[in-house]
Amino acid sequence: MATEARPDGPRLRVTYRLGCSDLSEAKKIARDIALEQTVELPEGTFDARIEHEIVGRVEDVEVLPPSACRAVVSFELDTIGDEIPQLLSLLFGNISLKRSIRIDDIEWPDRLLRCFGGPTHGIEGLRALCGVDERRPLLCSALKPMGLSTRDLARRCHDLALGGIDLIKDDHGLADQSSAPFAERVRQCQEAVSLARARGGVRGLYFPNVTGRISELEQRVELAVDAGCKGVLISPLVVGPDSVRWITERFGVAVLAHPALSGAYFHPDHGLRPEILLGEIFRIAGSDGVIYPNCGGRFPLTEKTCRAINDRLRRPLGTLRPSFPVPAGGIDVDRVPHWVRQYGPETIFLIGGSLYARGDLVGASAELLQAVRRAAVVP
Amino acid sequence: MATEARPDGPRLRVTYRLGCSDLSEAKKIARDIALEQTVELPEGTFDARIEHEIVGRVEDVEVLPPSACRAVVSFELDTIGDEIPQLLSLLFGNISLKRSIRIDDIEWPDRLLRCFGGPTHGIEGLRALCGVDERRPLLCSALKPMGLSTRDLARRCHDLALGGIDLIKDDHGLADQSSAPFAERVRQCQEAVSLARARGGVRGLYFPNVTGRISELEQRVELAVDAGCKGVLISPLVVGPDSVRWITERFGVAVLAHPALSGAYFHPDHGLRPEILLGEIFRIAGSDGVIYPNCGGRFPLTEKTCRAINDRLRRPLGTLRPSFPVPAGGIDVDRVPHWVRQYGPETIFLIGGSLYARGDLVGASAELLQAVRRAAVVP
Repeated sequence: MATEARPDGPRLRVTYRLGCSDLSEAKKIARDIALEQTVELPEGTFDARIEHEIVGRVEDVEVLPPSACRAVVSFELDTIGDEIPQLLSLLFGNISLKRSIRIDDIEWPDRLLRCFGGPTHGIEGLRALCGVDERRPLLCSALKPMGLSTRDLARRCHDLALGGIDLIKDDHGLADQSSAPFAERVRQCQEAVSLARARGGVRGLYFPNVTGRISELEQRVELAVDAGCKGVLISPLVVGPDSVRWITERFGVAVLAHPALSGAYFHPDHGLRPEILLGEIFRIAGSDGVIYPNCGGRFPLTEKTCRAINDRLRRPLGTLRPSFPVPAGGIDVDRVPHWVRQYGPETIFLIGGSLYARGDLVGASAELLQAVRRAAVVP
Repeated sequence: MATEARPDGPRLRVTYRLGCSDLSEAKKIARDIALEQTVELPEGTFDARIEHEIVGRVEDVEVLPPSACRAVVSFELDTIGDEIPQLLSLLFGNISLKRSIRIDDIEWPDRLLRCFGGPTHGIEGLRALCGVDERRPLLCSALKPMGLSTRDLARRCHDLALGGIDLIKDDHGLADQSSAPFAERVRQCQEAVSLARARGGVRGLYFPNVTGRISELEQRVELAVDAGCKGVLISPLVVGPDSVRWITERFGVAVLAHPALSGAYFHPDHGLRPEILLGEIFRIAGSDGVIYPNCGGRFPLTEKTCRAINDRLRRPLGTLRPSFPVPAGGIDVDRVPHWVRQYGPETIFLIGGSLYARGDLVGASAELLQAVRRAAVVP
């Protein structure tokens, strides 16, 4: 029954920032992580085989001046199996309850990446769905606010599409409330983009928010697919981190991931770096685009962090397709050209409130698209 | 289509601790929370009906000396609907990405509580399953470590049950790894407790860990139920917070909830108080028992926080059954009588590593049970 020893097999290597400046203390913490995240047993209560095959291996510990240390612990892939939930348990499950441990980097073995699969569409696939070539970024907007009737939301959906917005997604708070129930909303909003397509020669897509009860997830995605939607929006941490993988495997539709609840993990001293959670784990789970709160808007992420998220989503990672970064969270319409020049065309810009503030959605959307086109051709 | 105005209907009242000491600044942040968690729109881009019915209402803001403020914002129940995921989005979805906002308290309207339902078994039901009356706490232990063969885990399960442990749960890291695949483990461990029952007149129950892929959740719980298990273990934040409700509604088995990942929310300045997340939200979602890291063990929660978790799990809350607090995380066998006297009989003590350290699991378990019985009768 025993697992065969695989001392030379690929391992998951995790780099932690530890909030202590003393090397021997850091070594103790690293060993504690190696035990806590695997056997959860004190020293001396397991045998040499378990130590060798199961317990995390402390690979390296060094001082990170002035007041932290850096530790690398590697894990045997059999301790993860092939499930995203167990990956998350192993990465941060119990140590979330400790203090001053931050995951700064992860080296992903190809075997693990292949097993999770990553995006089904990725940047190229999502471009193809929208009919937009690689010369400009995509534009996305959100249907809001909750409390509007289905008819009013569908009208906004139509107007945004007619103005040339490529992706129109539900606000992440639109669930199945009585003002705009899910089934009715999906039908009417999908009809609205079809109408805009027929009228304006535009190709805007509608992505409904399927965030909701686990028991209704399948039905909601099915309903969206049956209505003709090519993708959906989901908040992975709200429904469950494995939900993205499940949707892509089961339905093959594109998935935009919303960062709701993710900020809990972004404490400077404890948690996961945003670029690891949003830029790698969300991508590995299958997100074709990952929404994050851009700097300079309503949220406090720095530009450095935003660029790191962009980089992790796009860069080569085993056989995984790249995902679209989707900066959002209060980007002003007037600042979009700036961000287009900063982040480049492999980006989806999500503009919500500041488009609504303009009043005429069709006109404001068309103007925005023109501005983006102009900004994108500037060398 | 518009929702009827319900100015006097019950509302969800959320108390936030804000990390600023200036009252007018705090009022701005409170209004920002009220917008961010509902309409996600800037002022002036929605009409009076939306303001009245949908936007959160700032009820109260006051200075909390020396360096914080306290704000109460209430939310119309229609903005939540009847889904736990949308409840979490509304409570902390987007503001997780801001800074220095902590949820300190929630007033739950009966209508919402009824709609989520809470525990199916609760303290009384779990006692009945274990055949233990209200005079003593229950004892729980964990099967570990990962990497042991199914046969070795089943032997430990048998010995713990024979020694008189009431609940034997899988370690939360036991998923479906090749060393002890889920289906085989459930069958053999359930047989092991049956054997102990036949041999020793004990009534120990085995709760397998069903934490895993969303797509396999149903199959795993079904397999556990078919094998004869009366309950399961799950990590709600790892699978998805709605998973507990789903399991209880679909199968009616008891659910022990594991706190993996929850510590991400427990930053002193930002997140949810542990007693709110573990003591109320996990209970409302349907957990019959909630595991948390007890003070004085391997984790840094204070005794005050642990007592607050105990209190929230047990105290009257609408029509919801009380849930068992399950202190864990490195409670030493020798200290159990102390904690029995501190926390009282409406508790499940989860003792893992320090039982294993004794070597003879049957003997150590029996001794522990005796010690607990003695401690429980002391006035």
